[in-house]
Amino acid sequence: MSQIRHALNIKREEDFAQWYQEVISAADMAEESGVRGCMVIKPWGYGIWERIQRLMDDRIKAAGVQNCYFPIFIPLKNFEREAAHVDGFAKEMAVVTHHRLIADGKGGLIPDPEARLEEPLVVRPTSETIIGDAMARWIQSWRDLPLLTNQWANVVRWEMRTRMFLRTSEFLWQEGHTAHEDADDARTETQRALEMYRACAEEDLAIPVITGEKPENERFPGAVETWSIEAMMQDGKALQAGTSHYLGTNFAQAAGIQFQDREGTQQFCHTTSWGVSTRLIGGVIMTHGDDDGLRVPPAIAPQQVVILPMLRGGEEDAALLDYCETLRVGIAAQTALGEKIRVLLDTSHGKAAAKRWDWVRKGVPVIIEIGGRDMDNGVVSLLRRDQLWNDNAKPDFTVLSPADCTGAIGALLEEIQSGLHDEARARRDANITRGVTSMDAVTAYYTSDAPRPGWLEVQWCKPSGEELDGVVEALKALKLTIRNVPRDVAPADGNCIFTGKPALERILIARAY
Amino acid sequence: MSQIRHALNIKREEDFAQWYQEVISAADMAEESGVRGCMVIKPWGYGIWERIQRLMDDRIKAAGVQNCYFPIFIPLKNFEREAAHVDGFAKEMAVVTHHRLIADGKGGLIPDPEARLEEPLVVRPTSETIIGDAMARWIQSWRDLPLLTNQWANVVRWEMRTRMFLRTSEFLWQEGHTAHEDADDARTETQRALEMYRACAEEDLAIPVITGEKPENERFPGAVETWSIEAMMQDGKALQAGTSHYLGTNFAQAAGIQFQDREGTQQFCHTTSWGVSTRLIGGVIMTHGDDDGLRVPPAIAPQQVVILPMLRGGEEDAALLDYCETLRVGIAAQTALGEKIRVLLDTSHGKAAAKRWDWVRKGVPVIIEIGGRDMDNGVVSLLRRDQLWNDNAKPDFTVLSPADCTGAIGALLEEIQSGLHDEARARRDANITRGVTSMDAVTAYYTSDAPRPGWLEVQWCKPSGEELDGVVEALKALKLTIRNVPRDVAPADGNCIFTGKPALERILIARAY
Repeated sequence: MSQIRHALNIKREEDFAQWYQEVISAADMAEESGVRGCMVIKPWGYGIWERIQRLMDDRIKAAGVQNCYFPIFIPLKNFEREAAHVDGFAKEMAVVTHHRLIADGKGGLIPDPEARLEEPLVVRPTSETIIGDAMARWIQSWRDLPLLTNQWANVVRWEMRTRMFLRTSEFLWQEGHTAHEDADDARTETQRALEMYRACAEEDLAIPVITGEKPENERFPGAVETWSIEAMMQDGKALQAGTSHYLGTNFAQAAGIQFQDREGTQQFCHTTSWGVSTRLIGGVIMTHGDDDGLRVPPAIAPQQVVILPMLRGGEEDAALLDYCETLRVGIAAQTALGEKIRVLLDTSHGKAAAKRWDWVRKGVPVIIEIGGRDMDNGVVSLLRRDQLWNDNAKPDFTVLSPADCTGAIGALLEEIQSGLHDEARARRDANITRGVTSMDAVTAYYTSDAPRPGWLEVQWCKPSGEELDGVVEALKALKLTIRNVPRDVAPADGNCIFTGKPALERILIARAY
Repeated sequence: MSQIRHALNIKREEDFAQWYQEVISAADMAEESGVRGCMVIKPWGYGIWERIQRLMDDRIKAAGVQNCYFPIFIPLKNFEREAAHVDGFAKEMAVVTHHRLIADGKGGLIPDPEARLEEPLVVRPTSETIIGDAMARWIQSWRDLPLLTNQWANVVRWEMRTRMFLRTSEFLWQEGHTAHEDADDARTETQRALEMYRACAEEDLAIPVITGEKPENERFPGAVETWSIEAMMQDGKALQAGTSHYLGTNFAQAAGIQFQDREGTQQFCHTTSWGVSTRLIGGVIMTHGDDDGLRVPPAIAPQQVVILPMLRGGEEDAALLDYCETLRVGIAAQTALGEKIRVLLDTSHGKAAAKRWDWVRKGVPVIIEIGGRDMDNGVVSLLRRDQLWNDNAKPDFTVLSPADCTGAIGALLEEIQSGLHDEARARRDANITRGVTSMDAVTAYYTSDAPRPGWLEVQWCKPSGEELDGVVEALKALKLTIRNVPRDVAPADGNCIFTGKPALERILIARAY
């Protein structure tokens, strides 16, 4: 059997980290900007983000949450008043100290010493404290509750080691912030947001996730509960793809978010916050990418279908372009996944074969190539990105009539969407091992020769304080972390693998991004 | 005739600036954040921005421009290399000098002296220089041109005197940046963007504008040509509502944006940039607001129709809510201005009358009130925000059947949209005075007792250098500026009102925001 000549230079099994970088570059998604820790998101990468935004925003609005916009700058005093929150964030923030530049007399520029800010401003790493100030102004009575807000924004966390989409100093995200009358209502909202993230990840991004609560040591600074969706990448590592926090009254007390309850008593609100970010795009790459580049799930593909005319630069091109345009119009009138199909007729410069492989690397779900002979025969040649190669190691084109192509395209895109999800779920499920009952077995699993160990589901006694510190250290020695306590699993029925005490919970442990 | 009791405390004719602040507050659009020069944009204000974004983004994408995202931080050296640009911006930028906070030992936080940046970073006031770096990487040959990019982003310009939406230290905008083979192509793009802004302002925001070129002294720092759309506010002042710049090869030379042309020679690209911002919302307020609050043009209204059931808190409410919900579903299936109608059934707490006036102040185009008696009679009561009062100084409700209401609502919204535009255009046109041929007449016009002078169209010889400085000074003494050189007017046929020389152009002069 012939050898497939893949479209990337690096294969996943050779060097997953290098492969990841090559996908981003080969799919023209993003690049280093030259500004420390900040990336430039290019049209194909940003187009995927716009799709994720649109679909997530629809879900957010459907839940009655209203979008707002809050300042990028947060005064120092906001951080000073919330001790636990500061401990979590104070180490990695961009600080604005001056509001003017002046010439240094040597052809350069320096911050103007005369324009030093009395109080430095922090570029938001997250907005709990500044939105808390607004909530304190907006909320007087139980009638003002629940208050459900969200913002789409850029945030900055100074990172020493960065990796595009996964960990950058500046990133884009949405942050939901809500205030409630009581703990029950706030916890319900925390779970609603978590479920929204699960649905978006699985239905829109085709990334299967496990929802669960983070252990105490992994909580968001200042939170009472932190919940996450965890996804398994193709190298077996975990990616925390979204978090939802129940904050108790911690931030309400720091910011003075109070309300008069139904009995006329002043109470502190119970608040929540929840967010997902451009990190999701890293998750899409590491879940669906293959040795030919990215594969974008149709729901979030900026273009779902690309039509490539094999132009020859002669007079006969006009008729071929007409033939292609008729197909484009026909496909654009079709529906897939509840929306009109996004189809592009690519008439850009370049040879058809080179353009085909560019689109393969970008991961557009369907490519339709049409040459003069196809036109003469009244057919088109369709290539599915999720089933790229035939048994002879050649691109697996299907030849069909334009009418059949137009009629089938909606169902085909939906099949690709669910196929990507099923493939990822099967791989994920095959790589979660249950029934490991000792640390020795954990150590054996993660120090074996297997190149890409997956996750282990083990049982523990939910230790706290120093006992938990010991567990964290023991796992850290194996480069492992506790991902979460899955929500939808059987109750514990064994002993804690760390302490031997009766177990209280099942937890997932894994290496992680 | 009875006296109308308006919904605001301050009337436009009493104090326009105070009225403006009251509209923002009464319509619950935005508020001061407590962070210097930064505002919080609340749901109704942000919803209007989301509508403007959606409609403008559709226009941007239809022109083949692709959205990207570039870093918020710009290294100092980018500003140092572009002299004219620095002169324009260096005075008002937020400068990040540290990347960590530490405890000061007294319960507070300070920038960590150990974490001082080697090179300070500027929070972007605009992105020409950083996008120029990317263009220099992306462009090799004429085949890569034109390169058409845009980003939606926040930017910061340190402002000493701020006013919500009109001038804030942080604001939201889009900035288009394009690179071209030659001056002709770049100038054509400059005009395309300008025309896009005109169409969006007039068709979506119902704000009539005059397109034209800015005089030399009002150019964007580093530009060869700056074009603007200028709108007249109800106090007669001008608002620059969008700008489009032809940058020549100035930024290309500073950033090294070069390409190999069709003959194989290395050339510098000709670039453009163009932007509109949340300032447009200030323009909407000052164009369409009245003494009862905001009036939002239907195309950009987050909700176009609000149904207000007059609930009594008893068992009869259920039937009334059913009646209202049926109407809501019927209206939501209708189309206006090319989109499904956005209709809200408002079941929030509060008395129906108070809620009505809240929606009047927010400026929702149509309010439909329905009480138990309306239901019994099989009717609804419809109130147009643009025709609020009847001759008896009462809200001018129209009573009609639900079927008639549903059938008429689409055309009604389109009538309101064009009516707001026509009203603004008539007022604008009535307040532009032509035929003024001397500075004495200009002085007389702007020092008369008329409370709200409009704009003057005068002729000038297009002076430059010191002669222009003199003109600028003379106008400044009257608090006037040259707004632009309108594109679509008759050629000059008189003498320059400043120098007496033969005139070359007609210009608009006005007081401005």
